[in-house]
This record gives sequence, C-alpha cells and structure tokens, in this order.
Amino acid sequence: MTLIAKPLSLSFEQPLPLQGGGSLRNYHLSYETYGELNAERSNAVLICHALNASHHVAGHYEGQAKSEGWWDNMIGPGKPVDTNRFFVIGVNNLGSCFGSTGPMHINPETGRVYGADFPVVTVEDWVASQARLVDALGIEQLAAVMGGSLGGMQALSWSLQFPDRLRHAVVIASAPNLNAENIAFNEVARRAIVTDPDFHGGHFYQHGVVPKRGLRIARMLGHITYLSDDVMNTKFGRMLQSGAALKYSTQEIEFQIESYLRHQGDKFSEYFDANTYLLITRALDYFDPANAFKGDLTQALARAAAQFLLVSFTTDWRFAPARSREMVKALVANERQVSYAEIDAPHGHDAFLLDDPRYLALVRAYFERIDLGDAA
Amino acid sequence: MTLIAKPLSLSFEQPLPLQGGGSLRNYHLSYETYGELNAERSNAVLICHALNASHHVAGHYEGQAKSEGWWDNMIGPGKPVDTNRFFVIGVNNLGSCFGSTGPMHINPETGRVYGADFPVVTVEDWVASQARLVDALGIEQLAAVMGGSLGGMQALSWSLQFPDRLRHAVVIASAPNLNAENIAFNEVARRAIVTDPDFHGGHFYQHGVVPKRGLRIARMLGHITYLSDDVMNTKFGRMLQSGAALKYSTQEIEFQIESYLRHQGDKFSEYFDANTYLLITRALDYFDPANAFKGDLTQALARAAAQFLLVSFTTDWRFAPARSREMVKALVANERQVSYAEIDAPHGHDAFLLDDPRYLALVRAYFERIDLGDAA
Repeated sequence: MTLIAKPLSLSFEQPLPLQGGGSLRNYHLSYETYGELNAERSNAVLICHALNASHHVAGHYEGQAKSEGWWDNMIGPGKPVDTNRFFVIGVNNLGSCFGSTGPMHINPETGRVYGADFPVVTVEDWVASQARLVDALGIEQLAAVMGGSLGGMQALSWSLQFPDRLRHAVVIASAPNLNAENIAFNEVARRAIVTDPDFHGGHFYQHGVVPKRGLRIARMLGHITYLSDDVMNTKFGRMLQSGAALKYSTQEIEFQIESYLRHQGDKFSEYFDANTYLLITRALDYFDPANAFKGDLTQALARAAAQFLLVSFTTDWRFAPARSREMVKALVANERQVSYAEIDAPHGHDAFLLDDPRYLALVRAYFERIDLGDAA
Repeated sequence: MTLIAKPLSLSFEQPLPLQGGGSLRNYHLSYETYGELNAERSNAVLICHALNASHHVAGHYEGQAKSEGWWDNMIGPGKPVDTNRFFVIGVNNLGSCFGSTGPMHINPETGRVYGADFPVVTVEDWVASQARLVDALGIEQLAAVMGGSLGGMQALSWSLQFPDRLRHAVVIASAPNLNAENIAFNEVARRAIVTDPDFHGGHFYQHGVVPKRGLRIARMLGHITYLSDDVMNTKFGRMLQSGAALKYSTQEIEFQIESYLRHQGDKFSEYFDANTYLLITRALDYFDPANAFKGDLTQALARAAAQFLLVSFTTDWRFAPARSREMVKALVANERQVSYAEIDAPHGHDAFLLDDPRYLALVRAYFERIDLGDAA
C-alpha cells in the first residue's frame, strides 16, 4: 500500500513570543499528516525534523517520482511507526525554507522579505509553535514525539515544556546540547556563508543572487560530520576519480571523496536557503536545557513525565553515544522509564536515517507497545 | 644559553625533476642550522616541517622578541634534540611561503610570478630537494631525519628514497597516507580558497588582493582537526564570549570557541599564501608509499634501513595512533628496529608541538642513545 502525502498549511494569527525576545506575527506552518486520528484522539505522533528536512516525512506526492518523505523507511503503513495504527504529523519548522514562515517570506512589519531580519528561533520556540499546531488539530495529548539529531532535541524539549502533552519521547542520535567541537563546525559553516560576497548581509534575495559558495562549503563540511571515518574509508578510501593516473593538480578532482563532496555541496546550494542554514545551526548551538540549572541535566530533566526511548549509533562522532548516555543517566536519576539502545552501526550520524534492521525493529517494537487506551 | 638563529639560503642551478612531471629550475631553499657539524660529519639531524611552519625550527632572531622557532621546546642547547651534540638543519619546503621558492616567486620560464602555475610538489620531491641541500652541506649520512605530521611523512619518505643516507627516522603524529576523511577536510579547505572571488584562479597577486575569506575558513577548519574534542571542551566548552546573556544572533560571536576560531583564521589569512595552502594539502593527499605496492605497506617499507622512533598521541583523531601502528607493524614485519610510544595526551594532533614531559623525555632518551661514532 502506497502512502500519498498532501502538504497542508495552517496560519496562526496570535503572535508567537520568542525566547530571544519579540514575537513572530502572522506566521504559517506547513505540515502533513498520515493515518487517521482515532476517536479517543490518543494515537497522534509528532515527528520533528533536523537541519535539512521538512514536514514531508513519509509517503510520496501523487504523480511525482522520487518524492518519498525523508523518513519514509520509518513511517507508513506497516512500517515501524505504523500509520495504520498511528496518526502521524510532520511539521516544517519556523525559519526553514520548505514551506513554513521563514527568511524568504514577507515580514509583515516592513512589507519586505525578512532575509537576515528573520528572528532567531530556538528549539523551545519550535516546540511552542508545534504545540499550537497540535492544538489546532484538536489533540490534547500526543502518543509520542519523535525525532533524530536536532529533531531529538525537539522531542526532549517537548517533554520539558509540555510534560503532560506527550506519553512518549523518542530521541534518536541526539544530545542534551552541542559540545565545543559541534559549535565549532557550525561556526565554520556559518562564516563560509556570511563571508560569501553574494550573501549581502543576508539580504541577497533582492540582489537576485544566492551565496552558493558558502552553502557548498557548509554542506561539504556537514557531510564529513554526518559520516563515520569507517564508512568513508569503505565507500571512498583513497580511490581515484579517473582510474589509476594522478593528475597532479590542486584544483581538479583527484579522489572520489572530493567528487562526492562537491556533488553534495552543489546540489544543496541549489535548493537550501542561506539564512535558514544560519538559523538552524544557531538553534542547535543554543539548545541546552541544563543551562538554567547550572549545567545539572538531572535537575533539568526532572520536569519530564513521558516515557523515553533513546537510540544512539556507535560510529556517530557528531552526537556520540556518550551524549545519549548523559540523557539516559539523568532520566534514570529522576526515576523515569527509559529504554536505551546503542546500535553498532558503521554509518556515523547518518545511521538514524538508514535501513539498519536492528534499529528499525527496535523502534517498531517500542511503538507496538505504546498503549492507545482504545479497544484495539 | 640562548640560541640565535640566522636564516640562510642556497640556490640550486640543476633542475629538480618532479614526480608530477617536468622540473623546477633555478630554485632556492631557505634553511637554518644549529650547533656544529662534527669532524666525522656524523651528527647532522634534518628537521622536516608540516603545513604552517618553516626552516625556523629553533632559537630566535637577534633583537626580535617572540621570534622563537616552531619546535624550540624540542631543539636547542640541552633540549631533547641537543644542539650541543647534534648539528640540526631546518629547511623550508619548496612551494611554501616562508622563503624557499614558491608560488609568489618569479617563474623563470615566463618572467612572471608563478601563482597557480607553481608545479605540484610531492613529499618525494621535497625529500629529493632536501637531499641536495644535505649534499651541499657536505653531509653524506644524516644521524636522523625527524618530523611531525606531514614532517613525519617526509622522515618516512627519506628512509625509502635514501635508505643509506640516514641512520634514524623519527616519525611523530603521522600516518602512512591520508584516509578519506583527511582528504575530505583538505578538499573543503581548498574549495573555500579556490571559490573565494579574490583567488582569481590563483593569480591574485597581480590583482593586489588575497583570498582571505577562503584562508580564514581553511584555517578555522584546520584548527578543529588539530585539537581533540576533550581539549576543546575543557578550554572552551559552551562558555559564552560576553558573560551570561545570550545575544540571539546568527552572525555575532556568542561562544568563546567561535571567537578563538575567528581569531586564528584572521591571523592566518594575514600571512599565509593561498597557493601554498593548496600545494601543501595536495602533497599530503598524494603521499602513499604503499600505493606502488598495491597497498602493501610492509612491501613498501622493505627498502627502509634506518632505525625508527614513532610517536602517536591518544586523542589525535587526525592521525590517530592506529595509523602509527600500521607503520610499526609493517616495519616489524620487515624486522627493522622500531621504538614506538603512544602518549596519553589530551591535546589531539597539536600535542606533537606541545610540552608533554613524557613525550619530550622520550625523544631526549632516543637521541641520547644515537651513536655518532665519535670519541664522545
């Protein structure tokens, strides 16, 4: 059974107060839903996305080849998060470039495109905006909030901001905050974008250009951190792009890994928004629920009431298993119900999006035991 | 006793054939020497440098404050490589920007600055040019060739290209080749430089500009790979640049790690040459002595006759201890004399330049037992 996805949009009149001050007026959220909300309204699952993803989580668009959602291996009829049983909601975050209000939209205050004036939004702001969408869909309590990487941070934040509005938080390949190295990589990517002459202080739209050089560098760098050393050596190693003969050139492509990265950078620079890149990496940098508790994560997570599933991947050096274990430890210290799996996978951070059978089986088993309080 | 360094230069008339084809004509090498060559000419030690270093290895320049050589903690009177006993030679590599013939010099073929036309030079080419300098200094056989990182690759290559011309090879924090991730980081740095509009295809000198944006990104990225995750978390963690209040800005500096990286990038872009950066990272990419032996490092190292000291550092994820162990294993398989130390140091790749007492004591002990065949 194929799942046909339909993008939806909802406008919000009431200004959204932002953590960084001020508020966002007249915004809209793009979202999709899969499956049916049951009579008890107890089977809704919210999926939160990471940097380069959207509300289009599962299924495909009618008549559009290769339009599968970014977590289509995880979510759909008969899949680990089974849309025959669950009502799944995908939502695009504010500040993104895939539909919800973002830097390329009109600022109602000025009548001009936001560009760099789009306010800095945080994980907490996203969660607040998602809660309003969930309100609008008539859902009091979610069966689960689930996400990987930055999406996992949102699931964790849901459990703290709205402890009674979710029964399960599924936090995959994530971390309770970024460490210095994570922030450092984000900063290099941001500097590449901001110092691209085509960035024009973030108001490049009105110049009819895009800071593609910076976006390419940002994406190439990102890709290195998504992959493990192992998988890079296995997939690319030192293999040459063109057979056996070296070109002895500093600018031409010599190794296959160079070709792969350049291709990824080029593709990304064609569709991703530079201001969105800055905003999303900053949301990552800022997320740190323990900060208000002098760094004490146990105290920070004391508010959480949900049951938790955490998953990490052994070769993920971006959000290493040790970071998941910090969260597990803090939750256990609070006597919360926690399941934790450390999957021995070679693919690095990217593993959370891939078809690892143990990982998919584990998520399936977890969702199967989620009680919907219905007759089924 | 302070060591006063004096930069020297030697011109070479005979063209240097290059691995990538063609040859380099009328080149000169900048170098320095410390200590005295003994009567037996048996106490010479050649020091090879990595990316951002030069012939100025030890001592300082008369009347110039803060002009210490880059390995002044290692080399000098009474230091681990004791210039009271050894005659130490520092040499700047071809293609560098610190004195020896490089991209900013005049191409004798055209009468114009080389720029991007400077030929690609390899580790093997550097070693061949260093051997000519050693010839010119009247030294038949070196007591040792020593280097860290890319410098270690040169020491290894010496043992293969001129097995009878060195008695010891000291290879620190190095690798027998770059892996895919290493090449990937180099490629991101190169793309940042090459796509900087001020690069002008490598002929920026005649435009009176410097591709500083690209150099900054390259250096920021480099710095992340030189440091360990641990040391970054200890030194910077999530500390804010300006006290406790967040600015909620995508472009202003928020975290101390951002400030540190930007500062390093700015400094570097003021003095380092963009073409040199491309050339040196390419020399790193290309180095792979096992390649001619279908990847069999044991066969590749069979030619080596020197005794070896290898040192690695536990938190070095750029050239991890496993890479040093590959070399140790191949040398042992060839029944070569090898000493190997894995130093438990928190500083990452940078550790090879720092004052770790165990590391310095180890190198000292190794050099003390080097036999000079003299009366001493």
